[in-house]
Amino acid sequence: MNEQESPLSLILFSGTDDRLGAAAILATGAAAMGRPVNVFLQYWALDAFRRGKVNAWHGAAPEAGPSGAVLVRTSLAGPRHWSELFRQAKDIGDVKIHACALSMELFDITHEDLDPLVDDIEGVAAFMSDATTGPITFI
Amino acid sequence: MNEQESPLSLILFSGTDDRLGAAAILATGAAAMGRPVNVFLQYWALDAFRRGKVNAWHGAAPEAGPSGAVLVRTSLAGPRHWSELFRQAKDIGDVKIHACALSMELFDITHEDLDPLVDDIEGVAAFMSDATTGPITFI
Amino acid sequence: MNEQESPLSLILFSGTDDRLGAAAILATGAAAMGRPVNVFLQYWALDAFRRGKVNAWHGAAPEAGPSGAVLVRTSLAGPRHWSELFRQAKDIGDVKIHACALSMELFDITHEDLDPLVDDIEGVAAFMSDATTGPITFI
Repeated sequence: MNEQESPLSLILFSGTDDRLGAAAILATGAAAMGRPVNVFLQYWALDAFRRGKVNAWHGAAPEAGPSGAVLVRTSLAGPRHWSELFRQAKDIGDVKIHACALSMELFDITHEDLDPLVDDIEGVAAFMSDATTGPITFI
Repeated sequence: MNEQESPLSLILFSGTDDRLGAAAILATGAAAMGRPVNVFLQYWALDAFRRGKVNAWHGAAPEAGPSGAVLVRTSLAGPRHWSELFRQAKDIGDVKIHACALSMELFDITHEDLDPLVDDIEGVAAFMSDATTGPITFI
Repeated sequence: MNEQESPLSLILFSGTDDRLGAAAILATGAAAMGRPVNVFLQYWALDAFRRGKVNAWHGAAPEAGPSGAVLVRTSLAGPRHWSELFRQAKDIGDVKIHACALSMELFDITHEDLDPLVDDIEGVAAFMSDATTGPITFI
């Protein structure tokens, strides 16, 4: 396997808009280089990918403070929203977004409850078997 | 070295039960695939592995909100508690849990103060020398 | 490429002093082993690297609680401050600190606004092209 092609495995745990933004930028950068990207949605990140909730305000990290939160909120307007970046990343590259089966159980939701950006539901074993090479980045 | 065998290096920094749960799931998934796992406990994660404190409630990420915290707390009951998952991961695979020497100093504690799940105390140099290949995932 | 030389790519997102401390320890450990380190400063971590703000108190993770925050604050005194550890890491090894161009835009700041520890400003594409091998660790 060409090193360039070693996949980027992104575990999204956090559901705040600043961390989701950082994740989307990373996914876009990797996809633009032709690197496969596997995203695994857990806990509060999965909650943020619910159908109809993607464009809601999900807050910022506590350390942002009120003025930092305003900056993040303003930056989400239009084409720079993380959901839009993930959409672009999927258009330009091999980017798959998987919902963690255990987190689905935690929230007691099904595939229909999720935004169309999410490709499927999978267990940690399936996610890990795609991540035998390359970084595993937890956000 | 077979790629399959490239170790997973997990740095546990956060001490909330949701992040510890995500870490335990990842460790279990990797161990089930026969992949060595090295866990390095720092700061608040180390604090959560103190003897007698493992089963206490350590809270959830701020973004969980009160209802999310209840979900996490409920999910910890019985065999799904992260400490139980780490125990299973150690039973099925090559999983070592190391306490960061500097964080031990920060809390002014010794090996006796830690849960038996913790194998030993080591410095960052020792941890990094086991992580020359494979991902380094910070949780 | 020798595996030993596979670079460590560190994305610093969080601006609290405990996470910055964990990042600095990791960078120092990798540099001491002769491993190249690329640090990418985003969001609140970039904010913490502003000129004249590095030695300010940036708080600790919410889970630290008041007593944990005091421990962190005390541990920052003198030669153990994370900025000092990054300085040492740069002295002993091949450690580069890059400011994320998009986060610079978010805060509307220029290179002059940053601490001299920061080498340059780069986009995510440049950062990712240095990270085609090795771990990508998000802190």
